[in-house]
Amino acid sequence: MRGTVLYAPGDVRVEDRPDPTIEQPTDAVIRLAATCVCGSDLWPYRGIEAIDGPSPMGHEYVGVVEEVGSEVRNVQPGQFVVGSFFASDNTCEICRAGYQTHCVNRQPGAATGGQAERLRVPLADGTLVPTPGMPDADLVPSLLAASDVLGTGWFAAVAAEAGPGRTVAVVGDGAVGLLGVLAAKQLGAERIVIFSRHESRQKLALEFGATDVVVERGDEGVARIKDLTGGLGAHSVIEAVGTQESMMQAIRATRAGGHVGYVGVSHDVALPGEELFFSGVHLHGGPAPVRRFLPELIDLICSRRIDPGKVFDLTLPLEQAAEGYRAMDERRAIKTLLTV
Amino acid sequence: MRGTVLYAPGDVRVEDRPDPTIEQPTDAVIRLAATCVCGSDLWPYRGIEAIDGPSPMGHEYVGVVEEVGSEVRNVQPGQFVVGSFFASDNTCEICRAGYQTHCVNRQPGAATGGQAERLRVPLADGTLVPTPGMPDADLVPSLLAASDVLGTGWFAAVAAEAGPGRTVAVVGDGAVGLLGVLAAKQLGAERIVIFSRHESRQKLALEFGATDVVVERGDEGVARIKDLTGGLGAHSVIEAVGTQESMMQAIRATRAGGHVGYVGVSHDVALPGEELFFSGVHLHGGPAPVRRFLPELIDLICSRRIDPGKVFDLTLPLEQAAEGYRAMDERRAIKTLLTV
Repeated sequence: MRGTVLYAPGDVRVEDRPDPTIEQPTDAVIRLAATCVCGSDLWPYRGIEAIDGPSPMGHEYVGVVEEVGSEVRNVQPGQFVVGSFFASDNTCEICRAGYQTHCVNRQPGAATGGQAERLRVPLADGTLVPTPGMPDADLVPSLLAASDVLGTGWFAAVAAEAGPGRTVAVVGDGAVGLLGVLAAKQLGAERIVIFSRHESRQKLALEFGATDVVVERGDEGVARIKDLTGGLGAHSVIEAVGTQESMMQAIRATRAGGHVGYVGVSHDVALPGEELFFSGVHLHGGPAPVRRFLPELIDLICSRRIDPGKVFDLTLPLEQAAEGYRAMDERRAIKTLLTV
Repeated sequence: MRGTVLYAPGDVRVEDRPDPTIEQPTDAVIRLAATCVCGSDLWPYRGIEAIDGPSPMGHEYVGVVEEVGSEVRNVQPGQFVVGSFFASDNTCEICRAGYQTHCVNRQPGAATGGQAERLRVPLADGTLVPTPGMPDADLVPSLLAASDVLGTGWFAAVAAEAGPGRTVAVVGDGAVGLLGVLAAKQLGAERIVIFSRHESRQKLALEFGATDVVVERGDEGVARIKDLTGGLGAHSVIEAVGTQESMMQAIRATRAGGHVGYVGVSHDVALPGEELFFSGVHLHGGPAPVRRFLPELIDLICSRRIDPGKVFDLTLPLEQAAEGYRAMDERRAIKTLLTV
C-alpha cells in the first residue's frame, strides 16, 4: 500500500509500505476513507521535534473495517468507524473516568502511519466507534475531524469549562483552536473571542460561532481581553498552540477562578510557579481523550448539527502529501485532507 | 499597643506600635482574642523572602469588634468576628464566584500586623464574619485556625476535589497540610494519605482522619502512592509546601484526570510544560479564598463537629513571639498560638 514517510525536516515522501495485518487478537485493520495532516505533524516536519530515522506519518483516520482479530466484539468488517490517535481499552478505571489517552493499556503511537491506504488499529473494541450506517460522502471530512482536531478542541473547551454565561477566549487559530470555537458555541458559551491575524481563519471562526476577533498577541492581546470583560479576564481560555508565549497569554487572559484548557502539545514551556499561584486559575489539558467524546461528536455530525469538516481548506490525493505539508507549514492552508 | 515586628531574618521583636484607628469609613478595629504564627511568616524569618525594613508581622486573627467606620453595616462593636488575610468586598463578580482573594477591591496586605493587640481591618463588611454569639474560650484556637490555615487547607481539599470514593494524598505536614487532612475527611474522602516523617504530625494527621502515613518523599513517595492505588496515583493531591520538589511530588502522585490543589506559597517553582501536559492532571490553587468558607467553617467549629485548633501545639503570650517563631522554624512546634 501507499503511505507517507518523513525522512528529514521538510522531506515527506509517499512510498510503498507493507500492508498492515492483524497482529494481536484485539486488532482491526481498516481501509481509510480519508486522512489528513495534523498541526502536530509540523513539529517534526519543521525539525523542532527530532525523528529517529524514516517515520511513517499521520494519526487521524476514518474508514471501513476490513478485518478484525478473534477477540474483537464491538466492530465488524464492513462498518464505517472513527478512531482516536491513542489506542485504549475503554474499560479500565482511567478510561471510565474519561481519560482514555491515559488508559492503563494505552498504546500511544498505535495509530501512527495513518496517512496511508490502510491502518492497523490495536484495542479495536475500545478505540473505534462505528457510525450509524455508512455515512454520506460529504460527512467524511467532518468525521475525520472528529478523530483528532474536533475531539481535541472539544476537550479543550470542556477543560476550560466553556458554557452558558461564559466568555471564552481561544489562543491559536489552527484547526484545533477553530474547532475549540465550535465546541464552545455548542457548549453554550455567551461570548467567544478568537485571537487571529489571518483573514480566512477569522472568517471560519466567525462561522463557527466566534463573536469577537482580537488581532493583538501576548500582553497586548491580554489587555484586549481585559477590555472586553470589564477588566476581569475571560472565564474560560482555550490554549491550542503549546509555546511559552501562548501558555502565558492563556493564563494571563483568564480571570481568577477561571479555567484554562490547554491542548497545544507543550514545547519548551516552563510555567513560573509564583505567577501561576497568584493567578488563581484552573489549569487542565494534555493529550485529548478524544474517545470520550466520539459518540456525541459522531451524533452531532451525522445529524448535521455541526460541520467541523470546514477546517479542511485544501484537499489533495495522498500522493501529493508533500504539498499538503508545505501548504500548512507556510500557513497557506489551515488543514489538508488527503484522499485515498 | 504591643505587636511583633521582624527586623531581619531571625530577629522578631515585640514592641510598642501605634494603636490602629478607623482610616476609612469601611474599616473596623478589632481587639484580638488570639493570634498566631503562620508557616508563611517563616519565609521572611528564614531570609528566603526579602523584607523592606522592619515589618509588622501576622495576618491571622479573631477577636471582638471595638469600633467600626460609618459605612460598616454587617458587623457591630461587641461582636466576635473571624476574618481572612485578604480584605475583600465580598460583592464583586470575582467574590461572588468564590475568589475573594482576587476581589477587584482586595487589599492583600490589609491584615498585616495581626500579631498584636489590635488590628484595623479594611472592607469590614466583606471581610469579617461574626460568630453566633460570644464563643466559649476553648473554641478560640479553632476559630483562629479558620482565619487562615483551616480555610487554606479546606480550599486545597476543594481544589483537589476531595470527596466520596476518592483517595487523597497530602504533601506537607504543617498546619495547612494537617487541616487539609481534616477537610478531606469532612468532604467524605475514602482514603487519606499523609506524607510525614514526624511522629507528632503523623499522630495529629491520624486524629484528623488520615488512613495512611507515607514517610518517603519525592519519587519514592510517589512510588508508594502508586503502590497504594493500584498503580494509578491518587485522585486528589493537596500540596501545602510550595517548593519545586513538593509541586512535582504532588503532580506525579496524581492519576491522569485527577486534581492537584496547591496552596503552598510558590517559591522558585518552574513547572515543566511537557511533563505537566502529559500528566493529564487538573491544577488549581493559589492564595486561598478563605472568606468563601468562613460561614461553613464557623458553623462546624461552633457546633463542635471539628476541632482544627489542635494544630496549635505551643501557646505563648504575645511577648514571647520570638520563641514561637523559633519553635516553628526548628520544627519543634507545628503552630504557635499567641495569647494577647
